[in-house]
Amino acid sequence: MNAHDRPLRVALLGCGVVGTEVARRLTRDADELAQRVGAPLELVGIAVRNLDTPRDLDVPAELFTDDAAALVRRGDLDIVVEVVGGIEPAGDLIRAALEHGASVVTANKALLADQGADLFEAADKAQRDLSFEAAIAGAIPIVRPLRESLAGDRIRRVLGIVNGTTNYILDQMTTLGQTFDEALAEAQRLGYAEADPTADVEGHDAAAKAALLAGLAFHTHLTLDDVHCEGITSVTADAVQSAAEMGSVVKLLAICEQIDTPDGPAVGARVHPAMVPLSHPLASVRGAYNAVFVESEAAGELMFYGPGAGGAPTASAVLGDIVSAARNRASDVFGPGETSHADVRLLPIGSAHTQYHLVIEVDDRAGVLAIIAQEFARFGVSIKTLRQEGLGSDARLIIVTHEAEDASLAATVEILRGLEVVRDVSSVMRVEGGS
Amino acid sequence: MNAHDRPLRVALLGCGVVGTEVARRLTRDADELAQRVGAPLELVGIAVRNLDTPRDLDVPAELFTDDAAALVRRGDLDIVVEVVGGIEPAGDLIRAALEHGASVVTANKALLADQGADLFEAADKAQRDLSFEAAIAGAIPIVRPLRESLAGDRIRRVLGIVNGTTNYILDQMTTLGQTFDEALAEAQRLGYAEADPTADVEGHDAAAKAALLAGLAFHTHLTLDDVHCEGITSVTADAVQSAAEMGSVVKLLAICEQIDTPDGPAVGARVHPAMVPLSHPLASVRGAYNAVFVESEAAGELMFYGPGAGGAPTASAVLGDIVSAARNRASDVFGPGETSHADVRLLPIGSAHTQYHLVIEVDDRAGVLAIIAQEFARFGVSIKTLRQEGLGSDARLIIVTHEAEDASLAATVEILRGLEVVRDVSSVMRVEGGS
Repeated sequence: MNAHDRPLRVALLGCGVVGTEVARRLTRDADELAQRVGAPLELVGIAVRNLDTPRDLDVPAELFTDDAAALVRRGDLDIVVEVVGGIEPAGDLIRAALEHGASVVTANKALLADQGADLFEAADKAQRDLSFEAAIAGAIPIVRPLRESLAGDRIRRVLGIVNGTTNYILDQMTTLGQTFDEALAEAQRLGYAEADPTADVEGHDAAAKAALLAGLAFHTHLTLDDVHCEGITSVTADAVQSAAEMGSVVKLLAICEQIDTPDGPAVGARVHPAMVPLSHPLASVRGAYNAVFVESEAAGELMFYGPGAGGAPTASAVLGDIVSAARNRASDVFGPGETSHADVRLLPIGSAHTQYHLVIEVDDRAGVLAIIAQEFARFGVSIKTLRQEGLGSDARLIIVTHEAEDASLAATVEILRGLEVVRDVSSVMRVEGGS
Repeated sequence: MNAHDRPLRVALLGCGVVGTEVARRLTRDADELAQRVGAPLELVGIAVRNLDTPRDLDVPAELFTDDAAALVRRGDLDIVVEVVGGIEPAGDLIRAALEHGASVVTANKALLADQGADLFEAADKAQRDLSFEAAIAGAIPIVRPLRESLAGDRIRRVLGIVNGTTNYILDQMTTLGQTFDEALAEAQRLGYAEADPTADVEGHDAAAKAALLAGLAFHTHLTLDDVHCEGITSVTADAVQSAAEMGSVVKLLAICEQIDTPDGPAVGARVHPAMVPLSHPLASVRGAYNAVFVESEAAGELMFYGPGAGGAPTASAVLGDIVSAARNRASDVFGPGETSHADVRLLPIGSAHTQYHLVIEVDDRAGVLAIIAQEFARFGVSIKTLRQEGLGSDARLIIVTHEAEDASLAATVEILRGLEVVRDVSSVMRVEGGS
């Protein structure tokens, strides 16, 4: 190690569940961490909103301050850990910390998905690290593997279960046959879902992570607005049942992919529920666990699995980043930054290739199937499997298509809905992870 | 990036399957790699055993040399990639490369498990990187996650399926009911096993990886001799069947663990077949895939999964290391080396805590069970489940113990074998990954 013995000064912004765990371990494991860094880590300040909040933390009271803005401007900090969350003031605090010479460790996916390009530029300009392992999939090491381990490979696709709340809800719907509302209530009761579950169940949290994953995998910048996002609120018990009947399970997937188009490579990122075959490694990711499945040219298929949230798991990721940033500060270097050299086009959702699973309620009379099949053919969509269930004077068609452009599939559904023989297209869901 | 534009000179030792793939990608992906490094990578030499071997590789003929010893001593190399394999001359070549100023990337687990301490010391002295992501579990990023991502956490246990050949064989025995010999022959026919399969089926390959994993996880040095090693040659179709009956599957596991003993922490590493419950994530690792399951204090349970061998996957890991080493060379720094600061005791296999699954053929008469139960009790081994199957005048007992020290379990088995009422202890296998 080209390290020296100067203590490295660490400041913490935020002292909630994650911040408390980070502070506790920085203090308790000081000797171990010093050996791993090559120099001691010294916790010199903790910015909190309210100084009067009682805290279960054995650190000197004078470390606490309610003036985060002043703390990050001390000028003698080596590392600032941002676990406040939210967009502002977190963004301004990180910019100020970098400008004043500190490397920054953050768990703030929403902020990075919003202002990532600007923040990484600030880090680059300041010649400091801006690390965010904890921002994607909690404790699962995914930033370093994508950015460093696979730096000599070409990633083609990343499929992630990156939101534990929605995975827990879908898991309950699958194993217990609960409705979405029942499973959500249960998740809230157990603390897996917040009182206002919007960010999770509408897919916004997963979409922010998808933007970050796509940026890492394809060396480009995406923001939340670049990610096509559908949540799980409209996933019905019927759809979950239908998935089970075809040997699949419904998961909320964050999908990042690079596709060669006639106009050159394009990168797409999307979040939506999808039916995943049980044979796919992602299908067995249960409860509040997360997993990121990577398809790359040379390495083939990799999967990273672990707890996606929680104070201790998130603290583990934050502390790993602190150790790396501290090693770099001790040697006065900084690690590989954002590699946004690839100026690729954005792939709209309509151009993504996927399969649809459809449940169509139709009149049970001769010729209906021919009419429907014709509409699929008109859009160049090929049917992979079709099952017909009679329901008295009605019939139900359960169709899985072959892979096609999402725009063609969506247009087919639109036309089907308007057909006289179609009473309802009662379920539409993409199918991913198949062969 | 604190990089400059000087090309970074790379030499390759060995041009077999992996070496060819590395050379091909260094050439084909030169632009991409240059952007990721911040400077171009220039392949300046390839050492091969025989210059006359025809090669499917589009590089200038003058790059090839059969004098590896001279190549590594050129003095102008930034990175030497060792994919020759074997102990010597690989070890001497790596030492010479480091002494002459190059960072080294190697896939050579056998060498590192033999001379790791010496080689890492040489790297440290030379202030160069010695990277080995490809040495453990092929393309799966595991070195960086253990060494960097989890650097702020405390790892308790690592369970790995790190040998694709044996996993393929056990998988065939499980799914097709084949015997070991049948499955081995099939694996050889398909190229998953070598003509001389000793290193794989006797567990030596896995044991070398276990030594490396234990070193990374517990910041210490282990050699092959420190690893308790049992292969899969004595795994019977009956044992596989018996595992299935209790909802488990037989896997060859590499287990590294740190245990608190009255004399302080001790680190153990062992490789042996074990029954793993189907509910454990490792149970679903099929065919020639590898996976490493990590239990750590803060992060909880993580798993890393992917192809464990093969030219392209191994090349992916090698190239990732090349990019990292090149970034460091460009900035004239070196990454975190071996952290062997923890001088821990070695945990002998007898002190490891495990469960046994036993099949015992006994006389079917009154009092036998009491005699046997007494022997378990004598060694403080508690029985978790017991099933009795009648076989005419004989009976068969299938026993799974609670967790106990391996020495106590082994001693119990030894005594059982000598009992008059026991005709045979026909199967003994450890059970891991249970609750």
